[in-house]
Amino acid sequence: MASLGRSIDELMQALRCLPGVGPKSAQRMTFHLLDKQRDGAQRLLDALAQALDKVQPCQRCQILSEQTLCERCSDPQRRQDQLCIVEMPSDVIAIEQATHYQGQFFVLSGHLSPLDGIGPEALGIPKLLTWLDSGQLEEVILATNPTVEGEATAHYISELVRARQIKVTRLAHGIPLGGELEYVDSGTLSHAFSGRESI
Amino acid sequence: MASLGRSIDELMQALRCLPGVGPKSAQRMTFHLLDKQRDGAQRLLDALAQALDKVQPCQRCQILSEQTLCERCSDPQRRQDQLCIVEMPSDVIAIEQATHYQGQFFVLSGHLSPLDGIGPEALGIPKLLTWLDSGQLEEVILATNPTVEGEATAHYISELVRARQIKVTRLAHGIPLGGELEYVDSGTLSHAFSGRESI
Ligand SMILES: [Zn+2]
Ligand SMILES: [Zn+2]
Repeated sequence: MASLGRSIDELMQALRCLPGVGPKSAQRMTFHLLDKQRDGAQRLLDALAQALDKVQPCQRCQILSEQTLCERCSDPQRRQDQLCIVEMPSDVIAIEQATHYQGQFFVLSGHLSPLDGIGPEALGIPKLLTWLDSGQLEEVILATNPTVEGEATAHYISELVRARQIKVTRLAHGIPLGGELEYVDSGTLSHAFSGRESI
Repeated sequence: MASLGRSIDELMQALRCLPGVGPKSAQRMTFHLLDKQRDGAQRLLDALAQALDKVQPCQRCQILSEQTLCERCSDPQRRQDQLCIVEMPSDVIAIEQATHYQGQFFVLSGHLSPLDGIGPEALGIPKLLTWLDSGQLEEVILATNPTVEGEATAHYISELVRARQIKVTRLAHGIPLGGELEYVDSGTLSHAFSGRESI
């Protein structure tokens, strides 16, 4: 569409860096911010400035944090011999809320995706290797997403871990608790069936 | 989910002011901005600051503009006797690209929506009335969206215009050019049929 002025065009363009935001929604967001939501826009401006200034990946585990070393990494009470590897910061929270896990975390911030130019470097694998070589770890728990990319990433990392004689585990696949068999997808069902346990 | 720190929480909250952004996408956007897209986040910060500083609604037609009086309103070449009323700034661009219209515009920035507390004041109707009373206008073209809300808004405004003995027109409804009859919705088809023209 034709221009409404340089500042408006630039804001529309800049909003496109947000995941899932195409030209149409960037335009809608721009009008919304500058027209109906001036207060919201100012709040967003302040929050973004603040977060860009204060938040960075933890030097050790890569979770987003306001400290150089996040609260988990600087907590001497946590087990040092277990390391759980996840894709996103939100996975850390989900695991902490669902389990009693008290070990270390490592946040990849994504998964291997060669087509998008996301290789081991981008996920912080060199930093992970240093950790694996430290001799502190007895078990590495792979908790990437059960997607093709997540599984491929887990496989890649498992080779690196195994080469260092450290035990590797991954989250069990199977039927979700509380689900009904007929609604479970067939891949999961087949996996759960062949992996059946004696009771 | 549990907290990853105050700055991150606040950014997630602030992003919720964007249209169509719920808690899950706000979270995804936050991680994206602070993790993978630091450059994009900085660009967004600058663009938003710039736009909030420079852009406001035109004093006369309410379109977003970097000037107090937008380029259309300050152009003496444009016809002063025609006023086209639209919902969004993007509608102005769409009409200019599709037609040779060279008159004035008035941007409501929305439509009447009593349930959301959007009444005549919020759309700038008092300012529109002053314009209608100026004696400059011969025709008011209603180009709100063909939705229930857009039609209701057009109806409301048409009464105000008619009361001032100014001609009111609205965009013709009918079958879109290049469409196939069987794919046209029945409301449109019925409207086009009853409004058939002799050739
Ligand atoms: Zn950490
Ligand atoms: Zn104007």
